[in-house]
Amino acid sequence: MMPATVAVDAMGGDAAPGVVVEGAVGAVQAGQGSLRVVLVGPEALVRDHLALHETGGLPIEVADAPEVIGMGESPTAAVKGKPRSSIHVGLALHKAGAADAFVSAGNTGAVMAAAFFLLGRAPGVARPTLVGFYPSTKGTTLVVDVGSNVDCRPEHLVQFARMGAIYAERVMHRAEPAVALMNIGEEPGKGNEQAKEAYELLRAAAGIRFVGNIEGRDLMHGHADVVVMDGFVGNIVLKLGESVATALPDMLAGAMDRLNLPESERATVRRVFHEAARGFDYEEFGGAPLLGVSGSVVIGHGGSSARAIERMIRAGADLARERVADAIGAAMGPAAGVGA
Amino acid sequence: MMPATVAVDAMGGDAAPGVVVEGAVGAVQAGQGSLRVVLVGPEALVRDHLALHETGGLPIEVADAPEVIGMGESPTAAVKGKPRSSIHVGLALHKAGAADAFVSAGNTGAVMAAAFFLLGRAPGVARPTLVGFYPSTKGTTLVVDVGSNVDCRPEHLVQFARMGAIYAERVMHRAEPAVALMNIGEEPGKGNEQAKEAYELLRAAAGIRFVGNIEGRDLMHGHADVVVMDGFVGNIVLKLGESVATALPDMLAGAMDRLNLPESERATVRRVFHEAARGFDYEEFGGAPLLGVSGSVVIGHGGSSARAIERMIRAGADLARERVADAIGAAMGPAAGVGA
Repeated sequence: MMPATVAVDAMGGDAAPGVVVEGAVGAVQAGQGSLRVVLVGPEALVRDHLALHETGGLPIEVADAPEVIGMGESPTAAVKGKPRSSIHVGLALHKAGAADAFVSAGNTGAVMAAAFFLLGRAPGVARPTLVGFYPSTKGTTLVVDVGSNVDCRPEHLVQFARMGAIYAERVMHRAEPAVALMNIGEEPGKGNEQAKEAYELLRAAAGIRFVGNIEGRDLMHGHADVVVMDGFVGNIVLKLGESVATALPDMLAGAMDRLNLPESERATVRRVFHEAARGFDYEEFGGAPLLGVSGSVVIGHGGSSARAIERMIRAGADLARERVADAIGAAMGPAAGVGA
Repeated sequence: MMPATVAVDAMGGDAAPGVVVEGAVGAVQAGQGSLRVVLVGPEALVRDHLALHETGGLPIEVADAPEVIGMGESPTAAVKGKPRSSIHVGLALHKAGAADAFVSAGNTGAVMAAAFFLLGRAPGVARPTLVGFYPSTKGTTLVVDVGSNVDCRPEHLVQFARMGAIYAERVMHRAEPAVALMNIGEEPGKGNEQAKEAYELLRAAAGIRFVGNIEGRDLMHGHADVVVMDGFVGNIVLKLGESVATALPDMLAGAMDRLNLPESERATVRRVFHEAARGFDYEEFGGAPLLGVSGSVVIGHGGSSARAIERMIRAGADLARERVADAIGAAMGPAAGVGA
């Protein structure tokens, strides 16, 4: 495997830079030579944190970026106000080819704005999109978009479908991925105006294996590899899924109280649920790939643990190795004639 | 308790009239004199099914309605094409005062259209709304709207909030119910255009205890009594919730396989999950109240069991007893001056 170099926003996330550095060290160790990392942040601070780990001989570099963009700051800060921020510098390294990907658990809006500005959109793409992962009884379903585009036209959903299918094929290894439209009924003609029009466009779209509408109740039953919806719905759906892992334990505890279950059996129930709910835990995926920019970018959860950071870095390397951005440009650019 | 008379669509639902008659008998028996039922459908057929039960002395009547509206039929059939359908006749009985409520597990669109046509909207109401129930770690949350209004203006969401709050206060006995807006971030200014505008309108609305935005991950944590969203989002969210009860068992089975759990312990896990997931089971609530019409109407799931029908009938009686429609008209009509 070609070694991939991932630029990591050392200042991204609620517990940065500590957990970011820890996650990066873990990713490089686990990569066994296939992964190099450039930690981007205030150099002295990052080196102080690196010194807490055994990093002798590991391919970890530090790139200085003295400015930090806070979680609540305006996205334009990343683009114009703070050109020496970890987000700006990390993306510039990727743009210049010094890194194959950039990953950040920082301010989502700022990372997106800076990625659009510095990397640009892939050919033919109107709206880059953040994608997420949903557990199902048959594996993992890709949800597109999960919050980056909250007011969409139907043709944007078609682009999300195309980008999602390319990701599912290349990175998730689904052959001819089945694409469905999230809707409130299975029949054609169901839904709001956006969904009705998107259905017709998807049905007519070349190069997409469109399997029709699916309802909320089908999402976890794995009827499709890729499910398309606007970012307002997708964000709510994704976060609702995450909450299964956080709310169910309380509901199970209440049920065990009502059933007077002995403590020995409660531990078994908790262990089984924990195992079953792993798919609802964003740490399993590490972050949301940003598709449709000319580059490989993954954005993680602000609350990322070191384990989540490790997986986010791996996801960035996968995106680069599978050349997803190139495939999107080839499928949607002017030469393909299907981008709009 | 004043006895309430509920007109029941005997032909509504996939397993009608068998399970409907069974559910109605169960409801009347459980009501112990507080509940009377009028079964509406083809008289001979309904009486044949009634004959399968011990109904001697129970307050169950039959109203003849020889026409049936199928689940796939156009809503206008109920209004104009089939004036002798069970839906039309049942609503007419309610309108005439021969029944205090009408409930149906039949064609949702047809019931809604006929209810608008025959009962009319409550004073000040622009869009009647179907509401649903969501389990949370703190009890049940009311979700408004769950699919009856898929293209909404922000002011419709304010009306949903007002109607939902009245239902929560009267039927769910929540004092000064907390109302939240489903959104993709907690801060004001987050969301799509609809949500941003709705936030400002809700903040300014008199008589609503608006507690701000909540995200998908908060819904099951019970941060609000009533959560408002448009019907497209609400329908997806509600059905996704229902699927927790159907998809999780498969995921738990997979987890138990991976953990090599002995069969004796598996039964315990299944029993606990079944108890914990009861809130995700629509049978617990029996149906979705239709708020904003001049009357008391509950619409059940097409796949309703006899138990679900029984609860739907009880929900119809509650709606009538608590005079929810009157309260909505009083709060939103011209005299209140806050309806728009």
